[in-house]
Amino acid sequence: VVETSSTNRPWTYARSGVDRARVSSGLAALLAEVSYRPPPSAGRLVNAPGHYAGMIRIGRETIAVTTDTVGTKVKLAAELGRWEEVGEDIVGVNVNDLASVGARPSGLVDTILCRAPEPAAFRGIGRGLDRGLRRARCALLGGETAVVPEIVDGIDLGATAFGFFPRGRRPVLGAAIRPGDRLLGVPSSGFHANGFTLVRRLLRERSVDLLRPRPGEKRPVGEEVLTPTRIYSAVGDALAESSATHGLAHLSGGGVRNLVRLHPKARFVLDRWPEVPSLFRWVQQLGGLSDEEMFQTFNMGIGFVLVVGATRLAETRRRLARAGAPDAVDLGHVERGSGVTVPGYGLSFEGYS
Amino acid sequence: VVETSSTNRPWTYARSGVDRARVSSGLAALLAEVSYRPPPSAGRLVNAPGHYAGMIRIGRETIAVTTDTVGTKVKLAAELGRWEEVGEDIVGVNVNDLASVGARPSGLVDTILCRAPEPAAFRGIGRGLDRGLRRARCALLGGETAVVPEIVDGIDLGATAFGFFPRGRRPVLGAAIRPGDRLLGVPSSGFHANGFTLVRRLLRERSVDLLRPRPGEKRPVGEEVLTPTRIYSAVGDALAESSATHGLAHLSGGGVRNLVRLHPKARFVLDRWPEVPSLFRWVQQLGGLSDEEMFQTFNMGIGFVLVVGATRLAETRRRLARAGAPDAVDLGHVERGSGVTVPGYGLSFEGYS
Repeated sequence: VVETSSTNRPWTYARSGVDRARVSSGLAALLAEVSYRPPPSAGRLVNAPGHYAGMIRIGRETIAVTTDTVGTKVKLAAELGRWEEVGEDIVGVNVNDLASVGARPSGLVDTILCRAPEPAAFRGIGRGLDRGLRRARCALLGGETAVVPEIVDGIDLGATAFGFFPRGRRPVLGAAIRPGDRLLGVPSSGFHANGFTLVRRLLRERSVDLLRPRPGEKRPVGEEVLTPTRIYSAVGDALAESSATHGLAHLSGGGVRNLVRLHPKARFVLDRWPEVPSLFRWVQQLGGLSDEEMFQTFNMGIGFVLVVGATRLAETRRRLARAGAPDAVDLGHVERGSGVTVPGYGLSFEGYS
Repeated sequence: VVETSSTNRPWTYARSGVDRARVSSGLAALLAEVSYRPPPSAGRLVNAPGHYAGMIRIGRETIAVTTDTVGTKVKLAAELGRWEEVGEDIVGVNVNDLASVGARPSGLVDTILCRAPEPAAFRGIGRGLDRGLRRARCALLGGETAVVPEIVDGIDLGATAFGFFPRGRRPVLGAAIRPGDRLLGVPSSGFHANGFTLVRRLLRERSVDLLRPRPGEKRPVGEEVLTPTRIYSAVGDALAESSATHGLAHLSGGGVRNLVRLHPKARFVLDRWPEVPSLFRWVQQLGGLSDEEMFQTFNMGIGFVLVVGATRLAETRRRLARAGAPDAVDLGHVERGSGVTVPGYGLSFEGYS
């Protein structure tokens, strides 16, 4: 069972007041009670604990499923009265997890909880949702809109997406990863939808005017920070077809630590991490945050990572370019061992959470 | 696209303050923006507008998907400190919609939004979730637990479930319904998870002590009202296999109006509606509610309805008994026309919403 928690990253939220130990123990208490495993007549579970998606084999097809919300990024959207970006994020946060197991997106259902259904906000959310679905080539299969003023302040946005493995493609779960493999990274579009409790706290504490650009930029800060999650569906779909691809990882909450989810006995050495985009540096300075905290909270400019057989790098790069990611960069390689290191910053992480 | 709204029932919530016109226009504004339809390489959409589940054909399998939350029933759970019942409801509210298209449940992902992860509440939710999954024969495939005190007051519980059609079974969508068909009803276990904004308001306004039984009962009212949603998965799975079954309907929010979703050109005549359980009568009296409001808000004692070919009633009853529903009752029949009537109460409804 893959039970993810958007706040299950202690380091991210230590400063913003979420008690990590309580989250873990709450979740553990829940999961300890769920022991039921259905008979094969309901489908055959694919065992991939801690991975990005739950998977089950139904007849001749394997279905992958992910669920996630946009988190507190909606609060920034509300403050700015801009809803298209987070509407698009509803899709991105989910289909990028499907891409991480090599599944092609098929359908999505959204869940909107709100205090009141403001037509302008709903129109913006719909516009963003449409754009995200278009990028992911995914159908909207339904949704739930609950007006629950007693439960929600403002709007909460979440969804569940499911995908499949066309023409007998196998899930890409990292088992093929071996020492010597190369790591390629596809740039992110910004913070995506992670770490916003922290980002918003820093912006507020430093009294940053969201309607003005930060030094050297043209777009207002609020708009820049809201930029929707880059969608890696085409990349995941194209790369999962290739035997050169040994692993795929969406760098969501947890930053580079996400790589640990791919293989327990591999060390991911990120010794060629590219220059970190100035937006991340600027936020880091606002809060006086350490490199360690930054790399395990944010994507630091790289949103999706591929683990590729060393002899097949050129071929993979061509495939990436055709799939809309000509901007992929070398990040490093795989060694014997465990964990993730970023030597240029003197960082070393063991474990995902 | 099936976009359901737990508050999209005007009559239910007229007294509890949700503005139906705004919900409709908000949702319409959102859906008007979502025009994208993916290419067949993402799967082939099954067209069933307004039905209980979204469906898409992937390879040789058709996947049905539903998403719903427990709504404001969680507020009663919080007040009573009892979480197992609503934990079980997470499953019931979703798999009963799958049963309504004849899909067998396969997997479920839950979403818990909370202010703080209380271990005792989480343990109860887990226990209920396990019980629901066991009854539905469904796997927990993942989940999201978000600690978002800025968004949520207390706890919100929702999920997405998906199912399939084993051995080439076709979805049961109501197309086979014809005049003369018989209607059978499977009793509910109480309010299930619908109409709780109204129920809670009445209990509060009348200062009902939730810890004491109502007249003539043994269980405390709070406990009685919290009773989890009866799960109709076994019934749906067994009945969907039979060509005698022309339609299936879960009576959720909207009460008997849900039948309209099965066929636009059939009149569902409920002329044998059984005695309404005393719990519904008692709540009706608390609020001085009309029969009309009751029948289009609550399930009134019948949670699941089957539309059955007239010559095959005995065979269907045997099937129901084997599937755990020996308590099914005759409700009425189908005529030419449209809408739903309950002649014994002088009621007539046109349209689902």
